[in-house]
Amino acid sequence: MARLYVLTMSCPDRIGIVAAVTQFLAEHGGWIVEANYHADQKAGWFFMRQAILADSFRLTLEEFSNRFAPLADRFGMTWKISDSDRKKRLLICVSKQDHCLSDLFHRWKQPESSFDIVAVLSNHDDLRGFVEWHQVPFHHIPVAPDGNPEAFDEMERLYEKYRGEVLILARYMRILPPVFCRRLERQIINIHHSFLPSFVGGRPYHQAYERGVKLIGATCHYVTEDLDAGPIIEQDVIRVDHDDDPEEMVRLGKDIEKIVLGRGVRYHVEDRILIHGRKTIVFR
Amino acid sequence: MARLYVLTMSCPDRIGIVAAVTQFLAEHGGWIVEANYHADQKAGWFFMRQAILADSFRLTLEEFSNRFAPLADRFGMTWKISDSDRKKRLLICVSKQDHCLSDLFHRWKQPESSFDIVAVLSNHDDLRGFVEWHQVPFHHIPVAPDGNPEAFDEMERLYEKYRGEVLILARYMRILPPVFCRRLERQIINIHHSFLPSFVGGRPYHQAYERGVKLIGATCHYVTEDLDAGPIIEQDVIRVDHDDDPEEMVRLGKDIEKIVLGRGVRYHVEDRILIHGRKTIVFR
Amino acid sequence: MARLYVLTMSCPDRIGIVAAVTQFLAEHGGWIVEANYHADQKAGWFFMRQAILADSFRLTLEEFSNRFAPLADRFGMTWKISDSDRKKRLLICVSKQDHCLSDLFHRWKQPESSFDIVAVLSNHDDLRGFVEWHQVPFHHIPVAPDGNPEAFDEMERLYEKYRGEVLILARYMRILPPVFCRRLERQIINIHHSFLPSFVGGRPYHQAYERGVKLIGATCHYVTEDLDAGPIIEQDVIRVDHDDDPEEMVRLGKDIEKIVLGRGVRYHVEDRILIHGRKTIVFR
Amino acid sequence: MARLYVLTMSCPDRIGIVAAVTQFLAEHGGWIVEANYHADQKAGWFFMRQAILADSFRLTLEEFSNRFAPLADRFGMTWKISDSDRKKRLLICVSKQDHCLSDLFHRWKQPESSFDIVAVLSNHDDLRGFVEWHQVPFHHIPVAPDGNPEAFDEMERLYEKYRGEVLILARYMRILPPVFCRRLERQIINIHHSFLPSFVGGRPYHQAYERGVKLIGATCHYVTEDLDAGPIIEQDVIRVDHDDDPEEMVRLGKDIEKIVLGRGVRYHVEDRILIHGRKTIVFR
Repeated sequence: MARLYVLTMSCPDRIGIVAAVTQFLAEHGGWIVEANYHADQKAGWFFMRQAILADSFRLTLEEFSNRFAPLADRFGMTWKISDSDRKKRLLICVSKQDHCLSDLFHRWKQPESSFDIVAVLSNHDDLRGFVEWHQVPFHHIPVAPDGNPEAFDEMERLYEKYRGEVLILARYMRILPPVFCRRLERQIINIHHSFLPSFVGGRPYHQAYERGVKLIGATCHYVTEDLDAGPIIEQDVIRVDHDDDPEEMVRLGKDIEKIVLGRGVRYHVEDRILIHGRKTIVFR
Repeated sequence: MARLYVLTMSCPDRIGIVAAVTQFLAEHGGWIVEANYHADQKAGWFFMRQAILADSFRLTLEEFSNRFAPLADRFGMTWKISDSDRKKRLLICVSKQDHCLSDLFHRWKQPESSFDIVAVLSNHDDLRGFVEWHQVPFHHIPVAPDGNPEAFDEMERLYEKYRGEVLILARYMRILPPVFCRRLERQIINIHHSFLPSFVGGRPYHQAYERGVKLIGATCHYVTEDLDAGPIIEQDVIRVDHDDDPEEMVRLGKDIEKIVLGRGVRYHVEDRILIHGRKTIVFR
Repeated sequence: MARLYVLTMSCPDRIGIVAAVTQFLAEHGGWIVEANYHADQKAGWFFMRQAILADSFRLTLEEFSNRFAPLADRFGMTWKISDSDRKKRLLICVSKQDHCLSDLFHRWKQPESSFDIVAVLSNHDDLRGFVEWHQVPFHHIPVAPDGNPEAFDEMERLYEKYRGEVLILARYMRILPPVFCRRLERQIINIHHSFLPSFVGGRPYHQAYERGVKLIGATCHYVTEDLDAGPIIEQDVIRVDHDDDPEEMVRLGKDIEKIVLGRGVRYHVEDRILIHGRKTIVFR
Repeated sequence: MARLYVLTMSCPDRIGIVAAVTQFLAEHGGWIVEANYHADQKAGWFFMRQAILADSFRLTLEEFSNRFAPLADRFGMTWKISDSDRKKRLLICVSKQDHCLSDLFHRWKQPESSFDIVAVLSNHDDLRGFVEWHQVPFHHIPVAPDGNPEAFDEMERLYEKYRGEVLILARYMRILPPVFCRRLERQIINIHHSFLPSFVGGRPYHQAYERGVKLIGATCHYVTEDLDAGPIIEQDVIRVDHDDDPEEMVRLGKDIEKIVLGRGVRYHVEDRILIHGRKTIVFR
């Protein structure tokens, strides 16, 4: 895996943005290996991602920031550049189900992974053994059904202690308080076990069964104060039929949940996602 | 295509139903070429479809009815038997868009089709030429945006005149009055251009765009008094991304709408669907 | 639909290509509404598509060609620019099956279509009425099972006479001679009713049935001298099971064939495809 | 999970099979919770699966066998009945890649699983720690690239020692000798990382990349002497595009491989598969 610098940016759309940025990159020897652009004509907004071979680039990231800033200001850009060798630090919240957690552990161990799992937090103690076998710290933080603020304070404290960059809710069965969601805005990713916006809230497979849908799905999204209403990152579905009761849907759904979460996490840690309002631009 | 008798039935579940029915069929020489069973354990209800080679069967449909009735009564069955040579008589309602209509005309012309299109009704006159070229009567019945009862009376009158058996809403842009829906219960099939229950009502692709979903879908369902809430027959989805604005979704969606409606109509006219409460059992 | 100029190009990959091209476009006021890039690191080759608002651009296409040429030469580009208002002229070859033809006629009539159907050629006379109803010339050119050269000469003559730009084989059941394929290289698009490279040649659904596959597919590809081996444009699949005999696969397959061909044709006429060796880059 | 007796059978098709079997089951109180039938009209063969609530059935499995035998003989049936409480004993062969193994371990731990993993065999020692952490015996059996017979003898010996019932090749990179395949006929299940029959043999993702396909797939099949040509159990695909080089395909493919293998193993251990010639009937 070649080391990459990944530049992402957005700004009001106008003529000359790509020319200016790619000119700048070329001047400093930047060999672009992957480039994505999106012009949202309705919103009048422009989005870009450039992956540059680190070896080809004659500036350090710090030098880049200094020299790129004036150009970025000219276009009113929101931007950042990241280094693929600096893996993102993930904390994972789970309850008792481990299919998503287990799958994330597996993805972490792949040579191409761009993240580290630095801690696991849970409102149950069940998965301690499994987590600790992977040599990852496990914290049991009980949460009352109606939520106890001190539990979430403790979670936030641990997130800071571990210098977390992303918090993954891997079938975590508690609702985070609004203030928590706001403070970690765009850093919390959830997997919801339905094809949102269908079946918001609890027991979505039971809702799906009651409604008699012919496909069930999973949705990976950023968490905001509005339950299951944050920007959607990725979704997928599988076919069910009249033979599948809610228990069977739960079983079938696990496969799609872990795959969809796996993709969503990858897009996030590889800086493939830009958020605009309630929506995401995902440069796959 | 071999001529088939298709027996469908449902009743409270208990031991011995299949034995009794298949015994009866075997006694009269019935060669079963396709058989489907479904036991809904939660509801305690049993569903069955048997396709029998007509040539093998020693009873006429009338004789069948007389002799099968006592057995059916014993188990409390709701049942019917139909003849695949008797094609179902379809009326189709359209507005201005013709992708679903055009596709249904094409399916009708296939040798294996189990339906006849006997008339097309529309609140616009635009598609008259296309329909009449297929030698199908076309009726222009304007409907005011808020609905005018006499228009729907006229539609019902035509449905009876043509001895209609199924009414297909092929992207028909008017809402049928509740009384109409009740009178033609289980005879009206709609294609809705979203993955229900998401995006009920008007402009679902625009709703999908606003919500930022990553898949869009289409749903074929029976029409009831509750808008877009009748039993679902079939659904499917296709992937979209941030590049797809509502207009592009409309364009992409056409392919999925016509396919999903085509499947739904086929299931219905081949007697593959049993309705139980708000849900369907579809024996594909 | 806004009028667009679409620039596509490929050349050996090196630093500065995007910068040079987008600089050039920006200098002449070019407002880019869609941009796609692909760097094939294994091949060392670079590919690009830019869609520019025609109204924003201060050069005519002729002026563009003159001024862009030196830049293109510097990078060793193969390139072209096209005008979305100039619809591509399609000729379609069919035999007796009409599901793909019927679907293409429907797509042609949509406001967003970028092609005109200028003639239909067939080795059977069956579809004359349907084609002529659409006010499109129909030519019946019988072809002996082993191919008679004069038939293909006649087809080529008509292609020229109608100033054809693309020849679509919409389930055309004759094999074109190699010399014909070479002369119309990159202009002939076929739909093959299997998931290539599986089941090359005749009766692919029967081959699929014999092999017991669980998904069947369709493949849209450019035609070369090598049967069913040209660059693949688009593919898709649907699920089948043990209940589906070859006849049922034929029936189910029609839906996927027409959709895949429809997509492939759209990508081609919107200049979304670049060919590199045996493969395509498709900027959807 | 209710305890079930699962009866599967096949025989030449004729009138009265279902009647006779369901009569027999009803006589002994058998409450059928799931039933599937398939008549292969081309082959003239009939296939059936019945899942019976064990608690409702008044015969033991032994009594069943004795009393059912005459009926089975009358119809020339191949049949078996199994007890869902008797989990199938799996041995798994792996090399260095662990995504399928890891996924199977996870499925094993679910309450609804119908199998036990009793040992893991590998031609490398890399996965010992992971396997032993799950408290499953791990055997390292090196195999020379051209195959050394004593290695396979040892594998067969262990299969017998552990009273194996199914041997799963979970991305095992050695080819089993024909005699081994014959002896364990219908007991060996492989996951091949392509959409068979495309890309038989080694490095299928590289083959797929060279051919420029737009979907890649995975195939779960029974192993026979003919490489990658045994009866197919399950297949699925995912979309790729020009951006995906073989390494990316390998990465994307893992998700589909583990899901397809997981489904295939489940169908097998739940006795949902009947084999007829080169094909499977899978009663999902």
